[in-house]
Amino acid sequence: MLFFTQCFGAVLDLIHLRFQHYKAKRVFSAAGQLVCVVNPTHSLKYVSNRHAVGQTSMEQGSLHSHHPLERVHDPQLIPCMCPLFSCQWEGHVEVVVSHLRQTHRINILHGAEIVFLATDMHLPAPTDWIIMHSCLGHHFLLVLRKQEKYEGHPQFFATMMLIGTPTQADNFTYRLELNRNQRHLKWEATPRSVLECVDSVISDGDCLVLNTSLAQLFSDNGSLAIGIAITASKVHAAEAEM
Amino acid sequence: MLFFTQCFGAVLDLIHLRFQHYKAKRVFSAAGQLVCVVNPTHSLKYVSNRHAVGQTSMEQGSLHSHHPLERVHDPQLIPCMCPLFSCQWEGHVEVVVSHLRQTHRINILHGAEIVFLATDMHLPAPTDWIIMHSCLGHHFLLVLRKQEKYEGHPQFFATMMLIGTPTQADNFTYRLELNRNQRHLKWEATPRSVLECVDSVISDGDCLVLNTSLAQLFSDNGSLAIGIAITASKVHAAEAEM
Repeated sequence: MLFFTQCFGAVLDLIHLRFQHYKAKRVFSAAGQLVCVVNPTHSLKYVSNRHAVGQTSMEQGSLHSHHPLERVHDPQLIPCMCPLFSCQWEGHVEVVVSHLRQTHRINILHGAEIVFLATDMHLPAPTDWIIMHSCLGHHFLLVLRKQEKYEGHPQFFATMMLIGTPTQADNFTYRLELNRNQRHLKWEATPRSVLECVDSVISDGDCLVLNTSLAQLFSDNGSLAIGIAITASKVHAAEAEM
Repeated sequence: MLFFTQCFGAVLDLIHLRFQHYKAKRVFSAAGQLVCVVNPTHSLKYVSNRHAVGQTSMEQGSLHSHHPLERVHDPQLIPCMCPLFSCQWEGHVEVVVSHLRQTHRINILHGAEIVFLATDMHLPAPTDWIIMHSCLGHHFLLVLRKQEKYEGHPQFFATMMLIGTPTQADNFTYRLELNRNQRHLKWEATPRSVLECVDSVISDGDCLVLNTSLAQLFSDNGSLAIGIAITASKVHAAEAEM
């Protein structure tokens, strides 16, 4: 009888251990998603001349308009300004990535799905949180900006840009997701090209926009987690199959 | 030989017809979703006293706070103000629906998933688009409001409220979806109770917020289509199973 009781106990232990193992595995999988802690970029000075140039070029073209030089040159040799507001650098599209890494120390993350964790959300506007995201054979730039479009009322703007031409950007879809406090917000769109101006995208409001109170609801201890995913759009996927 | 050719032709025809049938069925399903055209509510006058009362009561309680009278009375007999800004009516929760139908001529739609089509989005702020939505044994109120939180910059705010108590509201999740021009925006949250003030929800920004340019991108010929879905949250579903 004691033997059977011991056997039964051992079986119960095994069941318990198996349950614990699955539980641990689940937690590990959840934690397995790449989380990147992004600190705000420092000394971001807004240069009014640069802003004016960016806006004028945007006003001339429509949304997702093709860069005037795109038709003339090899896409990698198109001249391009640094997408960061504070920087006066100009060079070819093919060297923007190394410029952003070396000069601005912006990290590159690899993988189709990542979590962008922006810290110190309380810092006054203007503040930027920026990373590069490498997937599907391209580099993308995620910009989260705290800015006062209306004086005294800072808002958060998040957008993704392809480090490439508008035609290349049209082949992708990006998704930004916020999830907390029983609220869920999802924004999906075609990325814009870095040849267009980040500031114009934000001033147009054609991006994920959060007011301060909503950003607080989605934040945890002053940090905002944004889930990011990039997929090839159907046309591009169909082309790849051909 | 001719016989086999004819047979082959007949098989091809059958495949073609079957494909056409599935195609037609898919279109029918898409068109089968209930679309409700919602015109703006007229003569919406903002009463400052009423606003002040609403805001004060909201400031005293936390988000999703329980109505002070909820614990004392039968939920259906809790006194409640008309959720529309312009109206001074007060009565019990159980008669709010008939008041909204009879006095404000607000339509009731039935079904778990509907499309809310707000017309004349160009009208100046403040403007409201309102419908009632009946599903899962309850009535919900969808409010889309165009309002100038910052002077000269109208924004659109969309929220869903349960015509019931905050405790009842906690059992549901609502989803609002916008989809157009290769952009997709989704907001999911727990509905608030009509015992809380619609205006406080909107002034807190704890709802779907659209700036004018984004609303234009999602609009078609001056009308904005919002997909609405309501589901019972997990706790509620588990209770129903017990």
